This record gives sequence, structure tokens and C-alpha cells, in this order.
Amino acid sequence: MTRNIKLTVEYDGSRFFGFQRQEKLITVQGEIEKGLKTLTGLDHNLTVAGRTDKGVHATAQVCNFHTECKYELIAFLDGINKYLPDDVKVVKAEEVEENFNSRFSARSRSYEYYILNRRAPSAVHSKRITRVKDPLDVDKMQQAANDLVGYHDFSSFRTSVCQAKTPLTELYSIKLERIKFGDDLIIKASIHGRAFLHNMVRIIMGTLVEIGKGTEDVDFAKKALEAKDRTKAGPTLQPDGLFFVGVSYEDNGKLNHEVYDVQPVVKPDISDL
Amino acid sequence: MTRNIKLTVEYDGSRFFGFQRQEKLITVQGEIEKGLKTLTGLDHNLTVAGRTDKGVHATAQVCNFHTECKYELIAFLDGINKYLPDDVKVVKAEEVEENFNSRFSARSRSYEYYILNRRAPSAVHSKRITRVKDPLDVDKMQQAANDLVGYHDFSSFRTSVCQAKTPLTELYSIKLERIKFGDDLIIKASIHGRAFLHNMVRIIMGTLVEIGKGTEDVDFAKKALEAKDRTKAGPTLQPDGLFFVGVSYEDNGKLNHEVYDVQPVVKPDISDL
Repeated sequence: MTRNIKLTVEYDGSRFFGFQRQEKLITVQGEIEKGLKTLTGLDHNLTVAGRTDKGVHATAQVCNFHTECKYELIAFLDGINKYLPDDVKVVKAEEVEENFNSRFSARSRSYEYYILNRRAPSAVHSKRITRVKDPLDVDKMQQAANDLVGYHDFSSFRTSVCQAKTPLTELYSIKLERIKFGDDLIIKASIHGRAFLHNMVRIIMGTLVEIGKGTEDVDFAKKALEAKDRTKAGPTLQPDGLFFVGVSYEDNGKLNHEVYDVQPVVKPDISDL
Repeated sequence: MTRNIKLTVEYDGSRFFGFQRQEKLITVQGEIEKGLKTLTGLDHNLTVAGRTDKGVHATAQVCNFHTECKYELIAFLDGINKYLPDDVKVVKAEEVEENFNSRFSARSRSYEYYILNRRAPSAVHSKRITRVKDPLDVDKMQQAANDLVGYHDFSSFRTSVCQAKTPLTELYSIKLERIKFGDDLIIKASIHGRAFLHNMVRIIMGTLVEIGKGTEDVDFAKKALEAKDRTKAGPTLQPDGLFFVGVSYEDNGKLNHEVYDVQPVVKPDISDL
């Protein structure tokens, strides 16, 4: 009997030409499918919740595949991780219902974008945070972000090569936080929406940074949205600070059988922390 | 006139054979001195607060050098950063009194050690966090850590090749925290002491992890300390999760002239965060 396996995957996108498999280029999908081939001897075709671009990272990307392989579920966590490179790891393996599709069953996706607001570039997180030298007014950025929340035509916030059939989608929330880290100021943006257009998060962030720097007024994002014209929004901010952090599914993907979680057996109560 | 320049340096130690300059091996000191040579045309000899081993990282390492170079101070921040690799950056440049010595003027040093307590290895922080699969009892680890605080003979907590003249030093504090990060549990140890012996933090952490796993009783650290015998303590935990995070100086290194800080002009009040 064919089984449907759902994997939650973490990766550092720095080295990869995006998630999607491409001829002769190193991609996350390519590495996982190669790992599955080494593990099982069989070919598998991954479906993914949110394809990420070159240089974008993920802490909880979700994909699934159908397999004839009879291995115990744990093989798709511990086993495949032995064959994956250091910068791609499966953090959770689950067996789900036959009709679960990591892409089409998804109800919403979440991203985080990290900005290091200081003069010197980051050394420790060189390819995992976006450095902005100019001081940013986070309150203004938040005010402008609020104007983008809702069901809208996001034509101004997608690249000209975006293949989505419609520019209409719903943004549920954008929350900006200031985090002190030693002497440094980090700005973390948490973005939650139904589905995202090509480069949408990076263009939103590029637009908010222009407002935060004071180069543009606080109504810049709102006017860009209304214009439905890519040239009216800010630049596409680099992929470095962008992380795909989660997908939500009805009934958590209609779980079927076992789950191999990443957590050790004893979980601390969140209230202890 | 010779100037004395103090640099605060951040680095990802993954690629380096430690801080200290070595013939034919890539080191942090080697890269900074090479950058200074390219920038100024002059040879400089760095002094450092806390030499770190192969694979150990730093967010705020401190070094200093004397120079005849007449460049404005900002050249030792923006200028040198252009010649440094992505994984080494100067985050602060200061001009200090002639007799300031980043090593001998230091009053105390601080380290942080990060453990990812889950089944799957980290992909995003592959070389910057230590993964421990077994669930850890952090309360027991903290209890054992408290036994190490104080002025002691730390012979059990230094490698046999340690060159320090005395095994006596003072540990001011060890604080363990549990941090929830998405579905993951991260254990952060903050360690503050006067000076550290060779591998001291890594052996302390190796000892605490044995206690946290339940392999050893909670008095294992105390007994090891009393034995003054390296074989009685736990293993040397890997360098991956270890960060050198700060040095304290009397009068902040007796500041003399200008400071080029990494922060943008507008700093938010910490109470806003």
C-alpha cells in the first residue's frame, strides 16, 4: 500500500538555488530527493507548501511524498538525515492521510524576516540576516504594515515573473518587534498570510525599510497597494534575512498513524520558561 | 605619535583554526592583521582578551594594537571591514590610553554556550549550536553548576596542554536558561568569570550535560572539582555552541578619544522593547 509521508524540514538556504529542483543546480528539493533515493533505492517526487527562492531559509518548511517504501517512519527522520548535507535536516516525520497535499491542503503560511540595524555587517549570521545601516523607525514601519493587512490585490508586491494566476490574496498580520541582542538592535518581522506571491515578503520588507529610514512617508505602502503597480512599491529586499517558519493545516494535516517528533520525551511546560 | 586602538570583533569560528595566528593556517588574528596590512600598508601585532580555540565563535571579542597610522578612527571600522571575510567583522573601534592592554587590563570575561535539545541536528545553525538528543534536566544542571561558582582550583576543568601558570581562578556565575524557539528547546548557558583555563567552559558544559542526561548524579561536578583531576570531570563538549561574548575593563578601557559605535544614531530605550 502506498503511504503518504509529511516531512517538516529546516534549511539554511545560503548555498542553494532555491527549494525547487533544477537541472544541474543545487537545490533543497534536489538534496532531499537524492537523500530519499539513497535511503530507499526508490525515486520520489516531493510536493512543498511554499517554494522558497535562492538564499531564503526555513525552520519549518513542509513537504510530502507518496511512497511504496515499507521502512518504519523513523527512517524518514534519523535515516534520511544521515544522507542530507549539514544545511538541510528533517525535523519531523509524520504519516498522513492519502489525500493530504502539503501545498493545496495548506490554510496559511508564516514567514519571519530579520534585520540587523547597525553599522557593521553581521559576521556570525552573515547570510542569515539583512543589515540596514540607517536607523529605522519601527513604529512608522508597523503603522505602514497595518495598511497592508487584509484581502487585497497585491500586484505592487510581486515580481513581474510571478506565475500566480491572481494577485489577490489575504495577509492576516504583520508584527514588527525590536530585539536587543548584546549591543545590537535586531528588528524581527513576523508575517502571516493565506498564500504569498513571488517575492511578496521581500518587496513588503523593502517598502517598510524605505519608510523606516524616512526616505518615504508612512502612507507609501498604502499608496503602493492602491496603485497595483510594482514600480510604486519599494525595492525587493535581499533574501538573507528571510525564513519560512510554518504552515497551518486543518486537523494538522489529518494525521493518520505515527508521528516522530523532534522533541525529547520530556517537554518542559511553556509556563516554566 | 603612536595610537592605541581597541577593536570589538565578531566572528563565526567554523572555518578558523582558532583566534591565534599560526603559520599556513587560517585564523581570526591572521585575517585581521592581513586586513590591517591591506588598509594601512603597515604591519600590526594584535593583543587579544581571550584567545578562542578552533571552531569557537565570538560576538564581542576585544583586541588592541599600537599603530603609527594617521587614518581617522572610522577607517578601523568601515575601512577594515571591506578587507575582512564575511565571517569576521569589526563592530566597534575606539582609541584608548597608551597603557591599555586588551588581555592584561581585562577584569572578567563572559561566554555563552547554546545546546539544541532535540532529535534532529540543526540545519540553520549547524556549526553554531551543539545538539544533544537526550532530554536534559536543566534544574539539575543549574544545581550542579552552582557548586562550581567561586574561587577554586579548576585542575579537573582544563586540558592537559593548558599553559596557564595556575589552575586557580574565580568563576562568578553560571546561569542556565530554557528558551522555546518554535517547536524546539534551546538551553543557553551564560558563564562569567575572571579568567578561563584552556577548554574550561567546554569541560564544564560536558560535565553538566552528563548530569542533565542522568548519566551522572548531581554531585558529579562538585566531586570532580574536589578531585583536581581531569579524568574525574565530563568530556570536553564540542566548540560549536560556544561564543565569547564580552570582556569587562575598569573605566571601560580608559577611553581616550573618539568611539565609533556600531549602533545607528537613534537608540531605542531598552524599556521600549
